[in-house]
Amino acid sequence: VLAALADANGGAAAAYGDDTVTSRLEASLAALFEHEVAVFPVATGTAANALALSALAPPWSAILCHREAHIAAAECGAPEFFTGGARLVLLEGEAGKLSAAALEAECAHTLRPHRGAASAVSLSQATEAGAVYTPAEIAALSEICRGQGLKLHVDGARFANAVAALGCSPAEASWKSGVDALSFGLTKNGAMAAEAVIFFDPALARDFDYRRKRGGHLFSKMRFVSAQFQAMLEDDLWLRLAAHANAMARRLAERLVKLPGVRLAYPVESNQLFVSLPEPAAAALESRGFLFHRWETPSGRCVRLVTAFDTRREDVDRLTAETAGCLQEIGPPGRNL
Amino acid sequence: VLAALADANGGAAAAYGDDTVTSRLEASLAALFEHEVAVFPVATGTAANALALSALAPPWSAILCHREAHIAAAECGAPEFFTGGARLVLLEGEAGKLSAAALEAECAHTLRPHRGAASAVSLSQATEAGAVYTPAEIAALSEICRGQGLKLHVDGARFANAVAALGCSPAEASWKSGVDALSFGLTKNGAMAAEAVIFFDPALARDFDYRRKRGGHLFSKMRFVSAQFQAMLEDDLWLRLAAHANAMARRLAERLVKLPGVRLAYPVESNQLFVSLPEPAAAALESRGFLFHRWETPSGRCVRLVTAFDTRREDVDRLTAETAGCLQEIGPPGRNL
Amino acid sequence: VLAALADANGGAAAAYGDDTVTSRLEASLAALFEHEVAVFPVATGTAANALALSALAPPWSAILCHREAHIAAAECGAPEFFTGGARLVLLEGEAGKLSAAALEAECAHTLRPHRGAASAVSLSQATEAGAVYTPAEIAALSEICRGQGLKLHVDGARFANAVAALGCSPAEASWKSGVDALSFGLTKNGAMAAEAVIFFDPALARDFDYRRKRGGHLFSKMRFVSAQFQAMLEDDLWLRLAAHANAMARRLAERLVKLPGVRLAYPVESNQLFVSLPEPAAAALESRGFLFHRWETPSGRCVRLVTAFDTRREDVDRLTAETAGCLQEIGPPGRNL
Amino acid sequence: VLAALADANGGAAAAYGDDTVTSRLEASLAALFEHEVAVFPVATGTAANALALSALAPPWSAILCHREAHIAAAECGAPEFFTGGARLVLLEGEAGKLSAAALEAECAHTLRPHRGAASAVSLSQATEAGAVYTPAEIAALSEICRGQGLKLHVDGARFANAVAALGCSPAEASWKSGVDALSFGLTKNGAMAAEAVIFFDPALARDFDYRRKRGGHLFSKMRFVSAQFQAMLEDDLWLRLAAHANAMARRLAERLVKLPGVRLAYPVESNQLFVSLPEPAAAALESRGFLFHRWETPSGRCVRLVTAFDTRREDVDRLTAETAGCLQEIGPPGRNL
Repeated sequence: VLAALADANGGAAAAYGDDTVTSRLEASLAALFEHEVAVFPVATGTAANALALSALAPPWSAILCHREAHIAAAECGAPEFFTGGARLVLLEGEAGKLSAAALEAECAHTLRPHRGAASAVSLSQATEAGAVYTPAEIAALSEICRGQGLKLHVDGARFANAVAALGCSPAEASWKSGVDALSFGLTKNGAMAAEAVIFFDPALARDFDYRRKRGGHLFSKMRFVSAQFQAMLEDDLWLRLAAHANAMARRLAERLVKLPGVRLAYPVESNQLFVSLPEPAAAALESRGFLFHRWETPSGRCVRLVTAFDTRREDVDRLTAETAGCLQEIGPPGRNL
Repeated sequence: VLAALADANGGAAAAYGDDTVTSRLEASLAALFEHEVAVFPVATGTAANALALSALAPPWSAILCHREAHIAAAECGAPEFFTGGARLVLLEGEAGKLSAAALEAECAHTLRPHRGAASAVSLSQATEAGAVYTPAEIAALSEICRGQGLKLHVDGARFANAVAALGCSPAEASWKSGVDALSFGLTKNGAMAAEAVIFFDPALARDFDYRRKRGGHLFSKMRFVSAQFQAMLEDDLWLRLAAHANAMARRLAERLVKLPGVRLAYPVESNQLFVSLPEPAAAALESRGFLFHRWETPSGRCVRLVTAFDTRREDVDRLTAETAGCLQEIGPPGRNL
Repeated sequence: VLAALADANGGAAAAYGDDTVTSRLEASLAALFEHEVAVFPVATGTAANALALSALAPPWSAILCHREAHIAAAECGAPEFFTGGARLVLLEGEAGKLSAAALEAECAHTLRPHRGAASAVSLSQATEAGAVYTPAEIAALSEICRGQGLKLHVDGARFANAVAALGCSPAEASWKSGVDALSFGLTKNGAMAAEAVIFFDPALARDFDYRRKRGGHLFSKMRFVSAQFQAMLEDDLWLRLAAHANAMARRLAERLVKLPGVRLAYPVESNQLFVSLPEPAAAALESRGFLFHRWETPSGRCVRLVTAFDTRREDVDRLTAETAGCLQEIGPPGRNL
Repeated sequence: VLAALADANGGAAAAYGDDTVTSRLEASLAALFEHEVAVFPVATGTAANALALSALAPPWSAILCHREAHIAAAECGAPEFFTGGARLVLLEGEAGKLSAAALEAECAHTLRPHRGAASAVSLSQATEAGAVYTPAEIAALSEICRGQGLKLHVDGARFANAVAALGCSPAEASWKSGVDALSFGLTKNGAMAAEAVIFFDPALARDFDYRRKRGGHLFSKMRFVSAQFQAMLEDDLWLRLAAHANAMARRLAERLVKLPGVRLAYPVESNQLFVSLPEPAAAALESRGFLFHRWETPSGRCVRLVTAFDTRREDVDRLTAETAGCLQEIGPPGRNL
């Protein structure tokens, strides 16, 4: 990625995305997705999600998403800001996946204009709990959306990990399953700051250049964002990095569950693990310098571990060994946290 | 009220609220509430709520309210619009009353700046299920608010019915219990269009004239709104009308529950009844010309009946008789709706 | 108007505009304008203008209007608020009338997306300087709008005075001249609070009920606003009142200009006069209890006088006499203000 | 800069700005400005300006700036978006500099709440016409601001060029002259994407982390933005690059004005030149591959030339020679464009 930046640095170039690196990126993504696409590189996942949703949801409408969705839990109201006040309606579902039943139940409520109107559904792929929607699951949700006149957005901050896990094509995981807009993120997958909003129906993108510009997300030196993307796309680097992170997560999971008192709150489908272990052991791990978040799950409080594009086998094995050490240190488990 | 309008119609008057009717209203409300107040008449309850909340909640913050609150269920995103994107976080509680436990649990979540910040709590008094908060209950919620730096708003579209039911003073039901801002509505209580936002701390109202003007809620002929208010306040007309509506609701409840197959989903504390009766009976009532909404409650689907300032004893007795007729018509109850 | 309110007060009625008074109003206005209309009663002119513009102008766009337009000078940012941030671009023209040349010059600027995009033009009819656009003038501006893809809005707070002055039909002053949306105001013309947004292309009104509701401008007892309108429309009361106000303005102008040292800054075309007279005389008039605003005009500071639906000949003659008295009192004019 | 990025790339780091590179940057900027600062790196100048203004200007207020200011002419409504609808009021002044007289005249208008309220002034340093405010000029404007309760913002996309031209300290060009907030941009000066909002009064920055996050401008890998800044600050690289660009502009100006038919529309104070030359010569230059914008100035249409941190003497000399060639090619000047 850095080498690509250095390349993009050579010579003069047109500003604001009218450069050859950016137009090449559009062609590359159209090829990758096997479909006409409108592509808008931006620099944060929050911007990608909020801008994408603003093109799908009018200010008085509601966006339906899972209770744990990143857009609801960790973007400080960015969707409300960019849409001009649309509401996030929080629905349920296992492991962060929106259930079709919850979606249908919500769609049944309506009293125009008092209640407002639902306009869009947003899914996280992979979810905040590390689960992955299959193309069939997305298609089922998309069918409900079509029936209700709702647009379907996917927050793909971990799209790479999901596609790598599914073994399907990017097309199957997106427009072939009825996705209208995708926030395609590569920052978590190794880039410095590379996210793009991708529309599969250019009509939805008609005013997007205005939206992006007034949000302060039109980079004058767009080529530096585009170049990161391009570098990730070449030779499927993005998929290989994601597959590697997934493999490391599986490896870590296999090793950790063999330790006494350790369980997984969710199956490991991508590169996230939610590990239930005795709190004193978690604390001991932290005191040895490991950094992780605590996470509430239906089966109790967990530590959330995320493997990355650059996680090595040694890292996994060392973390396993250190965890084993911590568990031994604290003695036989009394009560799990 | 109409007579007061005719009075206000006589002669010329200063525009935009700088008239004697309006300043007299401010004095009257200060006397009624036994406290300095900043008063802003507006013409709809939605405007009163959304404008009041916009003075308490910055755009990136969250307003905590009950899942069934009118601001959440029936104002088409007005709070989001007037605040510039604040989020409504929906909490639980019985009969539309926000529980202190739910409030405390929500306040425990925070991760600045990712999650945003809670800024205000909004209660409906009486609630959408017809329940009434006691001053002690409000004070308990208000204490949590103070501890968390949250402002406390009351949606008082039915404040009159609540005060009449409690038998306490307007002061006890508001600032003495820790309320910062009150949407005081008299439209449901007999006026044509008379709502006011009342702040008990004038500092909160500092920019409110700008907010109201840009929301299109500064009437050039403000005296016509103020005059309605004034007429309602004289000789406690507002309280007498509300007490009457409450009494009619109790009368109706007492009579209806004696009918076979009829139950109440909630105790009748103000002027609303949620009546569970066999669906064919409800349909038969409708076909006889009665108008009401269906309502989901924890004990099943109900019909919602609201008594008004002008409901007469005969109306109550006639509805009781017609309901009895409908029940007879449909025969012995099979399954309740 | 009050009698109509008392009528509307009788009996029960459906809420939120689904009442017979309101639907009758829609039919009346369609007949008046000789065209299909979508009608939305609201209670202030600011709300009518800002809501109408929000349906025509996306948030990133610009609304072109005269530098002195009410929406720019006296609505505290309501257009920006309701549109979600659209910009007012202020153009020049004589007596408050937007000049075609200024409009064309502005339309020449464009650099997508950096500069944003113009989306709408708003005219005041009559203008803030009391001038009236002829249908031909509106049609000329509208032709430029069509060429640029701009919508045309008319702020008709004084539409009645303009139509009365022109002697044309409401249709000729609106859709026949290319107007897309009209804020039709009767508050200044005698109603208590009666304004309506009228769209001549229902497609523009598609989401308007959401916009109005979330702006807090959907009255639960809509019939009281509709009834005022209806009363004004019957027997052309609105036009007769406006014609009367215009006649009183002409009468006052004819008399005042005969006084020494008194001139008019603008021709009197509707019910407003901008009177240049020595400042000491203006001050003397004020000390005798007359209320008026000072106004900056190209020919210097003036006092602005507005005749009303209820101005009587005696009022005009008395004001003339008092002005003459004041002028005499201060002696021969030195310098005009 | 690229080397700094490579450095920042090594090892793991805390996300969202809680990293050592970013905290080091805050210390560096405090030292550079000789004052406590609150620093918020963002990635575009538009974001820096609009976010800074949102902290100074409430939604119903006006921001006063020069008619040609970048925030008014080229940011697609971003200030309106981030402030929630504040209005840009466009004032006059020579060479893009806001005149004190124009500022004072505007401040005289006020009619609360109808007109809204001015809240902030924004200056471009250097201006869009290449002019530079002296510290004394800023201080004079700032004094008017203080008297009116207005905050003072500086759009410093070319702050480096201005400081290099003035030969003063960054402190003298900012807080010592009364500046409250500065958009400090280094992108135009050689970085890839490095802009920062700097507040000299931390109280103004109290909620800024929320504003930035919800605008999608909180980078998870903030260190890559901070690192660019840090690299630019070391050994005054930012000032040396800017001084070089300025010198190249002066060199170019000196050479061009010697050519027949070539004039400068504005004095060259920073790194921009507005060159009046016969249009056929401009067209000929373009056909030889030079890229530049046409620009309207009071003395007619010009071509705008901007020298950069990496402009070489040879580039200047070659452009001069080519311009001379073009002028010769088209023969003796008829009329200047």
